[in-house]
Amino acid sequence: MSRAPLALVLLVFVAAVASADAPKPEKVIQYRQSIYHVMLWNWAPMLDMAKGKRPFDAAEFKQHAERLATMTRMLDDAYPEGSDKGAQTDALPIIWENKKDFDAKLADLQRETQNLATTAAGGDEAKIKEQLAKTGGTCKACHDKYRAD
Amino acid sequence: MSRAPLALVLLVFVAAVASADAPKPEKVIQYRQSIYHVMLWNWAPMLDMAKGKRPFDAAEFKQHAERLATMTRMLDDAYPEGSDKGAQTDALPIIWENKKDFDAKLADLQRETQNLATTAAGGDEAKIKEQLAKTGGTCKACHDKYRAD
Repeated sequence: MSRAPLALVLLVFVAAVASADAPKPEKVIQYRQSIYHVMLWNWAPMLDMAKGKRPFDAAEFKQHAERLATMTRMLDDAYPEGSDKGAQTDALPIIWENKKDFDAKLADLQRETQNLATTAAGGDEAKIKEQLAKTGGTCKACHDKYRAD
Repeated sequence: MSRAPLALVLLVFVAAVASADAPKPEKVIQYRQSIYHVMLWNWAPMLDMAKGKRPFDAAEFKQHAERLATMTRMLDDAYPEGSDKGAQTDALPIIWENKKDFDAKLADLQRETQNLATTAAGGDEAKIKEQLAKTGGTCKACHDKYRAD
């Protein structure tokens, strides 16, 4: 077998694998929205505790903060090219026109949620509330610019 | 203030907090389904690698296995009483009639997904495939009995 056909075979194989690699846009959107649902599930009780709507529980808060931080890291794979359509989504197309800025904002979120988890482990309620507000700011920064109302 | 009124005040307070604590069934179902979506997102590429549909990548496999294990732990809070209805759900009502058995099956899933993450970290492809099959068995055990077709 000459080199050319082998290269061709490999190319076809790689293409087939690449095609198996790329989930359909609607599946990406479902994945993305699922991450946000789990994030919100963990965010809500932390906010309730900060607002005094439920008693502050350091252990519970810490678990929610850790899970929130974990989920935000999964967002790295949740905005591939082409996932601006295919199902109902609040993600605005300008995300992909400003991908560097968007990724920087995502990195802010990931950093501050991790800081929240670390602060929560410390158990200092005042510091935790302060960090919760700071974390909320990184959510808002992205929502204001890149999410449909 | 006598002890009785204080106890009463506390009781009312606790009741109010408890009410703030309980998310609506449709929100629980959305949370539950979101966890499974993220689980499946991570499961699919591991299965593809095991079947040779995409090249085996130890680092990628490990990350998927860790995320899968993390998500299964969140299922602990995803089946509260009353969440058998309120939105479309494949979770059969017999879950809550057999909660001990269901919880045992969930514990099996959590243990085997954690074992998968540990095995994946070891990097031995044959052992990983074996553990993937074992893990899949714990998914199936629950689906067969507790999930609508």
